Amino acid sequence: MELIASKEKLRKLFAEFAPIGALPGGGNTRLGYSPEEDAMHRVFVSTAEELGYRTWKDDIGNSYAANFPDDGRKSTVIASHLDSVVEGGPFDGPVGVAAGLMVMEELKARGLEVPVTVIAFRCEESANFKLATLGSELLTNQISMELVNKAVGRDGTPLRQILDSRGYLGDIRRELPYERYIEMHIEQARVLEAAGEDVGIVTAIAAAHRFTLTLTGMADHSGATPMGIRRDALTCASEIILAIEAAGRREAGNSSVATVGFIENKPNIINAVPGKVTLQIDIRGIDSASIERVESEMKAKVSEICEARNIGFDLVTGDCKTPVSLDAALADELYEAAKAEGLKCRKMPSGAGHDAMMFPPFCPTAMVFIPCRDGISHNVAEHTEFEQMEAGIRVILRYLSGLAE
Amino acid sequence: MELIASKEKLRKLFAEFAPIGALPGGGNTRLGYSPEEDAMHRVFVSTAEELGYRTWKDDIGNSYAANFPDDGRKSTVIASHLDSVVEGGPFDGPVGVAAGLMVMEELKARGLEVPVTVIAFRCEESANFKLATLGSELLTNQISMELVNKAVGRDGTPLRQILDSRGYLGDIRRELPYERYIEMHIEQARVLEAAGEDVGIVTAIAAAHRFTLTLTGMADHSGATPMGIRRDALTCASEIILAIEAAGRREAGNSSVATVGFIENKPNIINAVPGKVTLQIDIRGIDSASIERVESEMKAKVSEICEARNIGFDLVTGDCKTPVSLDAALADELYEAAKAEGLKCRKMPSGAGHDAMMFPPFCPTAMVFIPCRDGISHNVAEHTEFEQMEAGIRVILRYLSGLAE
Repeated sequence: MELIASKEKLRKLFAEFAPIGALPGGGNTRLGYSPEEDAMHRVFVSTAEELGYRTWKDDIGNSYAANFPDDGRKSTVIASHLDSVVEGGPFDGPVGVAAGLMVMEELKARGLEVPVTVIAFRCEESANFKLATLGSELLTNQISMELVNKAVGRDGTPLRQILDSRGYLGDIRRELPYERYIEMHIEQARVLEAAGEDVGIVTAIAAAHRFTLTLTGMADHSGATPMGIRRDALTCASEIILAIEAAGRREAGNSSVATVGFIENKPNIINAVPGKVTLQIDIRGIDSASIERVESEMKAKVSEICEARNIGFDLVTGDCKTPVSLDAALADELYEAAKAEGLKCRKMPSGAGHDAMMFPPFCPTAMVFIPCRDGISHNVAEHTEFEQMEAGIRVILRYLSGLAE
Repeated sequence: MELIASKEKLRKLFAEFAPIGALPGGGNTRLGYSPEEDAMHRVFVSTAEELGYRTWKDDIGNSYAANFPDDGRKSTVIASHLDSVVEGGPFDGPVGVAAGLMVMEELKARGLEVPVTVIAFRCEESANFKLATLGSELLTNQISMELVNKAVGRDGTPLRQILDSRGYLGDIRRELPYERYIEMHIEQARVLEAAGEDVGIVTAIAAAHRFTLTLTGMADHSGATPMGIRRDALTCASEIILAIEAAGRREAGNSSVATVGFIENKPNIINAVPGKVTLQIDIRGIDSASIERVESEMKAKVSEICEARNIGFDLVTGDCKTPVSLDAALADELYEAAKAEGLKCRKMPSGAGHDAMMFPPFCPTAMVFIPCRDGISHNVAEHTEFEQMEAGIRVILRYLSGLAE
């Protein structure tokens, strides 16, 4: 189905978003619950109202637009977020909110009656409060109040104070009158681009298990200490990094990944044998048993390597989440819709977390991924073409058209 | 030979050195050509004069004390330096200068006439001007004036300005009326301590070959990027670090060592596949062919590993020195002297550089190492017992006694 009503509106909406939190070298900073995020929500709401939709806000600050009267009927949610990381790009989040408005425009232009609610969530990124997907977790009441009450923003303001000042009603059950939830998002990786594909239908959202490993050897003079008596924390770390990579590769068929993204070396000077290394380890997957196997192998290898090298270690387990399965039937229907649109498409896991994770307990939930250039996201160089967004919009439109009365 | 005249004087000298550049948490900062180094030289000179020795300075600022009249005769040099790194220890350098004075005291107490010149060199550490062994290199005219004229201290003052203001005569040949050169120094490693030995007689001083390696992969989302399409600069670096360690281990029998002491990882966050890593590599040895083999293996492995992992690399060769052989006959005699003293002793290479490196072109040159606790040096925790210094002094005393007329 060709887009007949939304192409120009999509470009106009991104042109209005563009100056908000814009950085001199490109990209944007729009932290959750910042004036910049507020400005994004104002543009969303005013655009929706100009297009003739009913809009409202909830007590969390999430913004809504619907193409049906407030008569209690159930609707399809199309949602994402409008905040960004520090020095992020303009597409991570906004493409999904924009897609919702554009799908409503295309349905309207075709005279198709499908009740749709577009939701722009607050504060999906952990950049401000070290808590991700806040708007959707608060809405679905799936976050511990202890975490909320402890959280503090980058500028030192307590999250709870911000929420209270914005009318937050607290730990209550909110209405979720939704038949299904669909979120369009940039992939944030290079799988679709590398395969030359237009869209990905997400089957599950990976869980991250995180660890901090501290290795304690002995800092020595690099010239004066023979190889045989060294207790080099960095060579030990190197062996562990490769063992973690190997463990991840062995489970690649189950979509698991294992990464050491952070390393700190001490004293970190050319003429000293490293005495202390800290690693941060991120293991993710959509299959808990597979994550467990990577984790067990990592733990066994850490012990084995440290013992062989006479290096002390401290492995601290951090945040460990559970993978979220999305709705298989809804994924099948979106996949068929993409095929019917003549698009190149695959089913795939999401390695990153999304607001969509909150909805499977409440309604069938799906995600549509579109490519982003070189897989770059959370970076000012993040880029997606309008044509790529349009492909994702067509998939949702095609699917929803089939539901029209 | 028991020490009969110097035990108390040794303790007194270190007690006078102790407050100079002393840090609240222990240790000292006495940068080359700083007021603290000047204070160290004043203590050395006044102590030598109180003990009845002739003292003088050269145009570089090196200080001298001799136990014979200024009649042109040749003497044995006992030397080291009085400066330190930032937050260094009190023994790296001063033990060798103190040893010279104490050996003269012991000779005098025994009525043994052996002409000795004690030299306290300036600025042996590279900490202030990024140039090591300055006092001995300037004295022996073995440093490029280009380097001297370019060098700038930590506080921004040009080295040349400091030298000129102190009476530096420039690029001229100075008198070196020395029969032999002996330097006592802390080992700065754990070889002697680990073996339970009292002294080491140094056979050669290692040369360092230094390299900077930059690895360029692709920074990606750690959750969203499958193992198979990653270009992880840190796992690549890990493989290279282990290959460098293996190359060093293979040449351990030839006293070579290979170290990656410095690593910088970007973006260095838990949720990103590392995109760029910089390593600083230090290869040292006393056998040029062995160093060469480690270096060739490193270069071959870097190419091979980077090609296999599709990682770009830039390997920049930095400073590459040549090993310095010390005098074998003098080493033999000092070794025999140590045995005659009943000390546990070994011949060994020095992995670190020393002022002694400058003297082989001019006279037979030797070094005597004494242990330091846990091999720690260039650190406020640096420690050596007076009894360990006394063992080194006895070796030099025993050897020089044999030369008495």
